[in-house]
Amino acid sequence: MSRDRQLHLGAFMRPASIHTGAWRYPGAYPDANFNFAHLKRFAQTLERGRFDAFFMADHLAVLNMPIEALKRSHTVTSFEPFTLLSALAGATEHIGLVATASTTFDAPYHIARRFASLDHISGGRAGWNIVTTSNPDAALNFGLDEHMEHGERYDRAREFYDVVTGLWDSWADDAFIRDVDSGLYFDPAKLHVLNHKGPHLSVRGPLNIARPPQGWPVIVQAGASESGRQLAAETAEMVFAAGSNLAAGQRFYADVKGRMEAIGRDRDHLKILPGAFVVVGDTVEEARAKRAKLDSLVHYESAIASLSIALGVDASGFDPDGLLPPIPETNASKSGQQRVLELAEREGLTVRQLAQRLGGYAGLAFVGTPATIADEMEEWLRTEGSDGFNVMFPYLPGGLDDFVDRVVPELQRRGLFRKEYEGTTLRENLGLPRPANRFF
Amino acid sequence: MSRDRQLHLGAFMRPASIHTGAWRYPGAYPDANFNFAHLKRFAQTLERGRFDAFFMADHLAVLNMPIEALKRSHTVTSFEPFTLLSALAGATEHIGLVATASTTFDAPYHIARRFASLDHISGGRAGWNIVTTSNPDAALNFGLDEHMEHGERYDRAREFYDVVTGLWDSWADDAFIRDVDSGLYFDPAKLHVLNHKGPHLSVRGPLNIARPPQGWPVIVQAGASESGRQLAAETAEMVFAAGSNLAAGQRFYADVKGRMEAIGRDRDHLKILPGAFVVVGDTVEEARAKRAKLDSLVHYESAIASLSIALGVDASGFDPDGLLPPIPETNASKSGQQRVLELAEREGLTVRQLAQRLGGYAGLAFVGTPATIADEMEEWLRTEGSDGFNVMFPYLPGGLDDFVDRVVPELQRRGLFRKEYEGTTLRENLGLPRPANRFF
Repeated sequence: MSRDRQLHLGAFMRPASIHTGAWRYPGAYPDANFNFAHLKRFAQTLERGRFDAFFMADHLAVLNMPIEALKRSHTVTSFEPFTLLSALAGATEHIGLVATASTTFDAPYHIARRFASLDHISGGRAGWNIVTTSNPDAALNFGLDEHMEHGERYDRAREFYDVVTGLWDSWADDAFIRDVDSGLYFDPAKLHVLNHKGPHLSVRGPLNIARPPQGWPVIVQAGASESGRQLAAETAEMVFAAGSNLAAGQRFYADVKGRMEAIGRDRDHLKILPGAFVVVGDTVEEARAKRAKLDSLVHYESAIASLSIALGVDASGFDPDGLLPPIPETNASKSGQQRVLELAEREGLTVRQLAQRLGGYAGLAFVGTPATIADEMEEWLRTEGSDGFNVMFPYLPGGLDDFVDRVVPELQRRGLFRKEYEGTTLRENLGLPRPANRFF
Repeated sequence: MSRDRQLHLGAFMRPASIHTGAWRYPGAYPDANFNFAHLKRFAQTLERGRFDAFFMADHLAVLNMPIEALKRSHTVTSFEPFTLLSALAGATEHIGLVATASTTFDAPYHIARRFASLDHISGGRAGWNIVTTSNPDAALNFGLDEHMEHGERYDRAREFYDVVTGLWDSWADDAFIRDVDSGLYFDPAKLHVLNHKGPHLSVRGPLNIARPPQGWPVIVQAGASESGRQLAAETAEMVFAAGSNLAAGQRFYADVKGRMEAIGRDRDHLKILPGAFVVVGDTVEEARAKRAKLDSLVHYESAIASLSIALGVDASGFDPDGLLPPIPETNASKSGQQRVLELAEREGLTVRQLAQRLGGYAGLAFVGTPATIADEMEEWLRTEGSDGFNVMFPYLPGGLDDFVDRVVPELQRRGLFRKEYEGTTLRENLGLPRPANRFF
């Protein structure tokens, strides 16, 4: 099997998992949002499991939820990504460090500089998850009463990317001579002043840090909209996709890789890694029971609010222990509503179970034994559903340890995943080329 | 001797020293700007020396210098402070970590969050050096053609400080209950939404991270202007002062402490630590020779530009090996010009030596043996010239090792400096109170 058809694995992390019930799971660390030692342990375990990257989710606001749901959610707070990943850089040697940073609420000079610095500190392990930040609550934290509309956000994001990558190219790779005898620290011919003036941004440069070891940190994106897919095809090197099932994953994969080819990019230069929630058991039944246990820890008040939103009707009067009653047509997204109805039917869930699933996590999930999970991952890889996954652990540390100690060896045994890191940088481990400097 | 009259010591750091000739000094690390391992070694040595804080200098642009000088300066690039200090947090256990962050070119939500995160990661060791960024080149990197004028910068800084500290107080210290049984993660009565709307800033809040372990990271400032001193007296807990000599230091000390008392603040709740360049030798003569050697490594092209600026005349035609010729009255700052003339006279410096001093470092310096350096530091402390110093090392690692291995033990022997850290946080080591939460 060629190296290209091996899986790449990112870990999509919140300190106590993305699942809102996770902090209550037996053995969990409810204080992980404030306890760096736990995060260090997670990163070191992932590195032992040869993960490509530790991918830090982020928000620029306390999430907008009714207080009854909010007060039960550990996702209300978190470490800030740059400080966390920089601290983790010192505690690890190989794993990539992907930080989320917004093109709507930050300045390109700061972003370029911070990622370059993280790349130097980590020896070439930084990645930038470019987000345009769709949460309107974030705007209120940054002095904007109205959130920038979608198209304008994406126009700005594209220009922001050009400026940041241009700033990273301020210095040739060999600009810094540091000739002690002559006293020449750098070669002025190898310094470029960007002088960018565009519709959204005006940035002179040069950046006050040397070109990153990777040339550019790895560019990551997650947008699924038309503009998001196009931006990804033009610029991204890793995509966090939200595939709900294999067929949808294959359509997304073909679409984005096709867009790349249409503009002349090599389709292997972008790795599509859908988010996948993985629950490991000795048997499929045990894995399902673990998931049911986890879902049951989502408080009913939060859960029922999620169900009401998904259905577009107030579900608070439904019998929690009965099956879902017939739902009238509503203004809710029809496809979203349909997915919920199908899920309830397929798994025979009660109203309570359905609500708790939605309040916890209801996207793509692999729930089974190491062998069945490896089967599913292999199928996605072989049928061009993805180039790997951004794994979401149901609870920490147990769910992460299970994956590293049980699923990773199975993937390695099948030749689907590395046994040792291929290179020293995130870019090398992902099999991505080092970008040329556009000015030198 | 009461603990209050002990020295506090910060290390004011650039990766290869603030002296522009330092990277060429024998044994120096010319690549320190890009080599985290060196910075880690420096921080660990400082911690062995029981320093209060590692204080990272910063700029938001490549410094504005003629290219002939610029190309010889290692100060053109550096790590970004948050990423660097977060990485150092993991490599140290006690030393404070002070990052410079601008109120003119950043958003209070980002700043509040990043410092809170660094404070959590480091277990309460963060400090914020509030700067308003006077460098007009920085404005051009942030989309502003004209730099904000001084008064407006300070008005915004004051409001920015109120917003950041208000965001830090978003959550009561005991807001996060994390009651696994009931599923309550936090107590909604202990969450405050800031809803700030002021002349410069509009920020809703709450901050999406728990209150920092120190309540607030330590507030540091360096402004010496009228507005800067007043802002320091109102808000700062450590001041990086630019005292050129003891008499000036005493005037500054009395002025700022007086301003504190005038508004009802305890004068011990702000530590005034002037920057001091310290060169250690076995004899005073050897220390002076080290300094002369270091100054001689400032390239003459850079040096003479500094002298011309200081004098307000083109000095490039002067005989480098002669004494300074008579200087006509110019538009240059008279006090600045006078200081240069006095320096040349006092030390009998040639034009070359004078220029190299100015091109390297010409502020407050203690150049001598561990005993003479301790004598001077003790005199400043006893006569209310300062509460300690922000030490600048002439070259690295040698100058830093000399200080820690030779000056620190002498200060400890005299009872002027701690032998062990007093507490676990920067605030505790500086003897500062933990701020109450204004909302709870």
